[in-house]
Amino acid sequence: MDATYRALCKHGYAELTMQDIAAESDKSKGTIHYHFDGKQDLLESFLEFLLTQFEERTETIPGETPAERLHEFLDELLTADDEDAVEFRTAILEIKAQSPYNEAYRERLRGFDRATRDRIADLVAEGIEAGEFRSDVDPEATADFLVTLFHGAQTRATAVDRPPERTLEYVHSYIDETLCLASDERDGPSLEADARTEE
Amino acid sequence: MDATYRALCKHGYAELTMQDIAAESDKSKGTIHYHFDGKQDLLESFLEFLLTQFEERTETIPGETPAERLHEFLDELLTADDEDAVEFRTAILEIKAQSPYNEAYRERLRGFDRATRDRIADLVAEGIEAGEFRSDVDPEATADFLVTLFHGAQTRATAVDRPPERTLEYVHSYIDETLCLASDERDGPSLEADARTEE
Repeated sequence: MDATYRALCKHGYAELTMQDIAAESDKSKGTIHYHFDGKQDLLESFLEFLLTQFEERTETIPGETPAERLHEFLDELLTADDEDAVEFRTAILEIKAQSPYNEAYRERLRGFDRATRDRIADLVAEGIEAGEFRSDVDPEATADFLVTLFHGAQTRATAVDRPPERTLEYVHSYIDETLCLASDERDGPSLEADARTEE
Repeated sequence: MDATYRALCKHGYAELTMQDIAAESDKSKGTIHYHFDGKQDLLESFLEFLLTQFEERTETIPGETPAERLHEFLDELLTADDEDAVEFRTAILEIKAQSPYNEAYRERLRGFDRATRDRIADLVAEGIEAGEFRSDVDPEATADFLVTLFHGAQTRATAVDRPPERTLEYVHSYIDETLCLASDERDGPSLEADARTEE
């Protein structure tokens, strides 16, 4: 899976061959072919692996309050965390563009979409429950909106080289200003919940 | 250009050949090759043609007030207007994913991004000027946000088959609730500007 990641970053999706993946691993092309029917089969497993990794990594999100955890989660989604991030984002966009032609890719991409929406909707619902977010916020609609914005930030980064960090700024102020109750609207003092907006 | 559009919708970007384009036109493959160096060259001209068409079509946007025109413009962006829309959206996403490998595509995609942002920023600035939108709204930041959301809606439609119309609903309420001044915050009565929110 690491070799597939490196090969995708190096060659992109369209040009990728099993040989490229073998070259990045300590296995021969024959051994890889023994385990996977071909490039598509291997990439289906790779997307499955990424989804499982994503679900595990985001099972517990650090932060004292739901709002802090939502900031943190979106930071994680929109911040490039290694030097191959640009190339990997491009490869994922190529795979998204293949989705209408490939039911197996589409299933994995839907799994990602669903997992991302669910995580966000849960955090928003927790924030409402905790009296940190406005009670009239709809967790599902908010999650759907933020996932769309996330896809947009990724696409624009690839298509027109616009840094996704600019969307992150917007997202942070959206959480603080649109989702969070203003301090004077809250039931009682909540130091933790206020910490972020005062930064 | 019409033949290129039809061929892209039928075959997608990756599989498209000059022969496919010739088959959709009344020209021979030889004639097309006489005018264009190959598929990339033809598609660069096609993107150029789309951009010019887009700029001309959106030079005047119907609507009585800036808010109405902004609603109309985003309706236009996010509504599929023919039966090939799904296939065409996929082809455009394939081209976006090629952008890092192709400077000429990137230039055209940047032209689109810029034209879309400029149209939106102008409408938002007009709305502020007319006292219809809040004076603390930033036209450039709003335009950038809406363009990101537009890209996200297009990408999710292709990647996970989520209808872009759902984003359109969000966008309409964003204009009415976040950009527009509430009727009681306005300087004077403005029947036209109120018409939309009362629908």
